[in-house]
Amino acid sequence: MSELRQNPLSKDWVIVASERAKRPHDLAIKKDDRRQLPSYSSNCPFCPGNEQMAPPASMQIVREGQWQVRVVPNKFAALSSEGELFRRTDGLKRTVSGVGIHEVIVETPQHHLTTALLNEDDAELILQCYHERYLAISRDPRVDLITIFKNHGTAAGTSLEHPHSQLIATPIISPEIRRRMEDAMRFYDDEGQCLFCKVLAEELADAVRVVHETEHFVAFIPYASLSPFSMWIFPRRHMASFGQIHAEEISDLSRILRTVLAKLYYGLGDPDFNYVLRSAPSETRYSRYYHWYVSLIPRLTKIAGFELGSGMYINITLPEENAEFLRKVEIPKPQVIGAALHLTPRT
Amino acid sequence: MSELRQNPLSKDWVIVASERAKRPHDLAIKKDDRRQLPSYSSNCPFCPGNEQMAPPASMQIVREGQWQVRVVPNKFAALSSEGELFRRTDGLKRTVSGVGIHEVIVETPQHHLTTALLNEDDAELILQCYHERYLAISRDPRVDLITIFKNHGTAAGTSLEHPHSQLIATPIISPEIRRRMEDAMRFYDDEGQCLFCKVLAEELADAVRVVHETEHFVAFIPYASLSPFSMWIFPRRHMASFGQIHAEEISDLSRILRTVLAKLYYGLGDPDFNYVLRSAPSETRYSRYYHWYVSLIPRLTKIAGFELGSGMYINITLPEENAEFLRKVEIPKPQVIGAALHLTPRT
Repeated sequence: MSELRQNPLSKDWVIVASERAKRPHDLAIKKDDRRQLPSYSSNCPFCPGNEQMAPPASMQIVREGQWQVRVVPNKFAALSSEGELFRRTDGLKRTVSGVGIHEVIVETPQHHLTTALLNEDDAELILQCYHERYLAISRDPRVDLITIFKNHGTAAGTSLEHPHSQLIATPIISPEIRRRMEDAMRFYDDEGQCLFCKVLAEELADAVRVVHETEHFVAFIPYASLSPFSMWIFPRRHMASFGQIHAEEISDLSRILRTVLAKLYYGLGDPDFNYVLRSAPSETRYSRYYHWYVSLIPRLTKIAGFELGSGMYINITLPEENAEFLRKVEIPKPQVIGAALHLTPRT
Repeated sequence: MSELRQNPLSKDWVIVASERAKRPHDLAIKKDDRRQLPSYSSNCPFCPGNEQMAPPASMQIVREGQWQVRVVPNKFAALSSEGELFRRTDGLKRTVSGVGIHEVIVETPQHHLTTALLNEDDAELILQCYHERYLAISRDPRVDLITIFKNHGTAAGTSLEHPHSQLIATPIISPEIRRRMEDAMRFYDDEGQCLFCKVLAEELADAVRVVHETEHFVAFIPYASLSPFSMWIFPRRHMASFGQIHAEEISDLSRILRTVLAKLYYGLGDPDFNYVLRSAPSETRYSRYYHWYVSLIPRLTKIAGFELGSGMYINITLPEENAEFLRKVEIPKPQVIGAALHLTPRT
């Protein structure tokens, strides 16, 4: 019989439908190898040489005369960086002005790569960039929440091939995020410890859902994973905000992120995915209660009417089997491809 | 500048991103005309003559010797109708046995049709069937919530062509649904009236987001519609549960549902969509506070990293423009196709 499991962070319920269970490899997809794409595309706004197609950079990390990671304002920004923050109430209609920050992080100059195929040093630059922009933007008094995320592939909501992620800083915190904070506070009040630290301790004790561990991080498929291969990457050290990460932890995070993405890439055939950094909106207020982490969601199944209507989920795979499958995926030897194709500036 | 709007029922915020706004017709898609599909498919478990490919029917409505709507248990049920309801707690792990009902409503014998193309009488049979199953299943003491929904097209989570919808009865109510109930109760406590009745009154007064009205129902694009063309169909009469609907209201609901689906079909080119009946889990407890309705969600855009991470949404269209566009869509004269192709039983 199938069973219902509850996510301890969001309180969401998921039906783990073992009766209709798919084996992990049934979800592997056949996609053209990304590496067959050209390393440069003349109409790509994120390829070196085409910088004028995007707004001027907010920051970039340059190596040997070539930017390696580059942050630009989103040309089609959902929120405007200029303008006044106001709130309007008219009957039941609630409106806030669309003020905020919307940036694109171009992750590599190479059009055809993806984090799974980058070398370790290049992958680390992406995380460094996230951290630097996170700290800079948190100083904006209009900003309540910073969401850093990646959409990889059309099922995950992007049609742009060039590897990139995004940062959106909003003038409000959604009730969903607020509730997670409140639930974490209530847990601390009741139990005298951090909910996330306890989740991590239990997952490490159970061991069956752990995918990969490094010195500072643990990647695991949660007990109540809402969809196949959905994964959390938790820092072992208790810290509420991504802003509080140390340099050696950034380096370690880039290694574990690249490793699990490579396991998805080689094990499931480059599936579309999203990842998102879930961080407390401020370092101080939530320091005892909250614990930031990365949520990684392969988009192998669709959110359908049942999920939209009931607020519950159906997972057609077993988290324990997913984790075992990924633990066994071997990643081919270090990619010379990444280093070999390093671009020199185009003229 | 874009603006953030709040959904008064779920409290979700949506960025209405007018800077990146698409005109409604930009979202129209090119799909092969459904009517080019065969009216019968030999390997379809829902076509007449193939009844042995699905479990025996829970109910069917027969006209002139042929079933017109047929309800069967889902062959790959997410929940099991047999078995004991139990709850298990182990550290932070919460588990409930997967007991419940999962049925498929086969909406017509004709493989190639869809509600938008059915005649009025045939469309009404679908709603009658929903109501009958809803009442029968609510008597099961293990059932806490009944979700009736439709997935149309691959983006909405189905690969089966034959028109069908589903019913899932779960042994728990998700915290999301519970919160909606609590919010509606709190509104009633504060304001002394039903939140939904007030939403409806304001939308009728504003008028600009109304798509279609009938004697008993109003279809409108809510002020804070989370995605393009997402629509609510509200009964004018205050009633908490779909179970309380009257016969003439069922008939009227089938007309308005068919009309708005036809507007989507002809106006946007048969987009993939979900709809879901949102009903109070019990008639009595929530009778003053809650108000059932249909939520209709065309799947024209993807839920991506920002939505998953922030609990907010981005709508790249204006609800007011969406509604105006749909009001103007003309539905071709009554489909003789529906009547003309009525099948006789296959031998």
